[in-house]
Amino acid sequence: MNDLAAIVGIAETPFAKKLEGSEYELACQVILAACEDAGIDPAEVDGLASYTMETSSEVDVARAVGLGDVTFFGQVPYGGGAGPGCVGQLAMAVATGQCRVGVAWRSRKRGSGGRPWAGPASAGVSDYWTRPYGLSRPVDEIAMLMRRYMHEFGATRDHLANVALSGRRYANRNPRAIMHEKTMSRDDYMSARWISDPLCLFDNCLETDGALACVVTSPERARDGRHAPVLIHTFAQGLPRQHHSMINYFNDDPLEGPAWTCARQLFGQSDIKPGDIDVAQLYDAFTPLIPLSLEGYGFCERGEGAAFTEGDALGPEGRLPVNTSGGGLSEAYVHGFNLINEGVRQMRGTSHNQIEGAASCLVTAGECVPTSALLLRSDS
Amino acid sequence: MNDLAAIVGIAETPFAKKLEGSEYELACQVILAACEDAGIDPAEVDGLASYTMETSSEVDVARAVGLGDVTFFGQVPYGGGAGPGCVGQLAMAVATGQCRVGVAWRSRKRGSGGRPWAGPASAGVSDYWTRPYGLSRPVDEIAMLMRRYMHEFGATRDHLANVALSGRRYANRNPRAIMHEKTMSRDDYMSARWISDPLCLFDNCLETDGALACVVTSPERARDGRHAPVLIHTFAQGLPRQHHSMINYFNDDPLEGPAWTCARQLFGQSDIKPGDIDVAQLYDAFTPLIPLSLEGYGFCERGEGAAFTEGDALGPEGRLPVNTSGGGLSEAYVHGFNLINEGVRQMRGTSHNQIEGAASCLVTAGECVPTSALLLRSDS
Repeated sequence: MNDLAAIVGIAETPFAKKLEGSEYELACQVILAACEDAGIDPAEVDGLASYTMETSSEVDVARAVGLGDVTFFGQVPYGGGAGPGCVGQLAMAVATGQCRVGVAWRSRKRGSGGRPWAGPASAGVSDYWTRPYGLSRPVDEIAMLMRRYMHEFGATRDHLANVALSGRRYANRNPRAIMHEKTMSRDDYMSARWISDPLCLFDNCLETDGALACVVTSPERARDGRHAPVLIHTFAQGLPRQHHSMINYFNDDPLEGPAWTCARQLFGQSDIKPGDIDVAQLYDAFTPLIPLSLEGYGFCERGEGAAFTEGDALGPEGRLPVNTSGGGLSEAYVHGFNLINEGVRQMRGTSHNQIEGAASCLVTAGECVPTSALLLRSDS
Repeated sequence: MNDLAAIVGIAETPFAKKLEGSEYELACQVILAACEDAGIDPAEVDGLASYTMETSSEVDVARAVGLGDVTFFGQVPYGGGAGPGCVGQLAMAVATGQCRVGVAWRSRKRGSGGRPWAGPASAGVSDYWTRPYGLSRPVDEIAMLMRRYMHEFGATRDHLANVALSGRRYANRNPRAIMHEKTMSRDDYMSARWISDPLCLFDNCLETDGALACVVTSPERARDGRHAPVLIHTFAQGLPRQHHSMINYFNDDPLEGPAWTCARQLFGQSDIKPGDIDVAQLYDAFTPLIPLSLEGYGFCERGEGAAFTEGDALGPEGRLPVNTSGGGLSEAYVHGFNLINEGVRQMRGTSHNQIEGAASCLVTAGECVPTSALLLRSDS
């Protein structure tokens, strides 16, 4: 079932280290703004989807914003793996008649708020086998995977720098980006402090206060909107067999994570294939997720993801422009939702780093956790 | 979109005040047992849905049980409002090709576990306006609504007793029911201790340890199963405009809650109408939810729900047999999931209180919270 639904409105707050207002207040603001962008009265909204980690509840948001009678609401777990899944839930609900106009959102004051790993551990069943050995923060877990990847495939820190520098250059042309004013050189990258060897400061995403929302409706209704509709060609989620979030040690190959599962489902339903995709927004809480995602989603072969980044391949003139807003590394980190909105802008032709003629865009959620992805296309 | 998917397997643990094993262990047991009931290898399961309140995570369950590559997973918020919504999410996912075989489950050790209202309040935004005035437990909130309902429509405690006694009689014929051995007379009901005036002990559901699961797949695949498929004719959710969970004071009429919203969506998509329904499983955390749900789902007019219960109308020979397993009041309270499994049994013809010739069954989640409902039918 293709072109299930369309995204017709997007909005975001400014991104900052610290914003005024609660996560709930920011959520209400962006939901109203996304409806305004869509040209749809909030009273027409009858579907809601967000992350299980979202703190603003459906009931409170619906009442404050003045939504209509809501006939679909759902949530998606696993933080950075959830964003496209939320939009996908709404697409399914629209396609099956459960609602007519859905809003997905994420509001998060992570820039000024607490750090979850600083408090008592909230560990899953298997985390008891890894936490005592020093894998206490997400970055430690990804560092282990990256060391293995380097060992197996000859990847180097220069490849990770390619990812960080490319994202930063996009951010330098995007006034919304937290890092808009801050340039970065390869020397800056190489001399940055270690966070978890082999990952340095610039291999880690930002910590941001911000909120984003998007509005989903039927393709037919979308064609009456203020902007050209952006079709949700297909969506998928992926939780591979014998998965262990972040570290994936139960698998024969810990470097083939949820992206592979998600990609099989996504492209199995799609007539658009990896080679046809014009631009991609790939979840980048950490730089290593980019080579892993390039492989998982079929842009290159197994083990070639690092080499793929050479020659500014992720830049505006490159083989596959990636994270054209600056992404989680340099625009903002709001659990990946800003990748969705940037994907919509690319399909509308309104990005600050617009890829000429881009007509299809892959948007992914976090590799290494149960994940999700959207394949967007312009309506033409 | 009707007959989106079908339920092909169900399972539950025994129900008890205290079971051995963690919620996670019980969840794994019932998921395996539901696959066994369906005749489907757990490795074929590629969809998962549960309550946001569920403590056993998708990752842990999938690994322990040996599920396949999962390509859909979602959660539904609001506790007792979630059950049919979880099954509905899977039905949408099957209908749109996101997965082929989904499992929904709920595992809860509420019988032996803590009481959420005994600890620090976890209050939503508007609860700050009601908690200080003594509405500290769910039963206090429903007691206020019931007092208003009595005042407006002349309902009495005898009507609530009709609900409690009818459920108990079904439980007395259902060996799974916690109250299987315990009969109840009208005198027992009337002399029971108050919990929150006008609600006595027997107006409150049980507190149970137990877990349940069901397996959802396409109608075509379902026809190859071990049991006759039970079609999910349609499903809906409901979160009305200006809703405040449990107390609903922001509405002009607090007695028209989520059931009304959910019913409009449910029957708006269905060629089966309230008058056609043979048997119903109506969420009964408290007896007043039954008259409210009878009205909301259109079995009678506004204000007539209490009177509807007269003359054993909810009994096996009555106008609408309701909660034929004993429901949350007398079989088990596992956030309403046992109502789903009983609905499936009625459509299979295998209930301990089988309604002769029943071919359609309404299953609802909690009235007074954002809710959901399934309209099941037999495949003939």
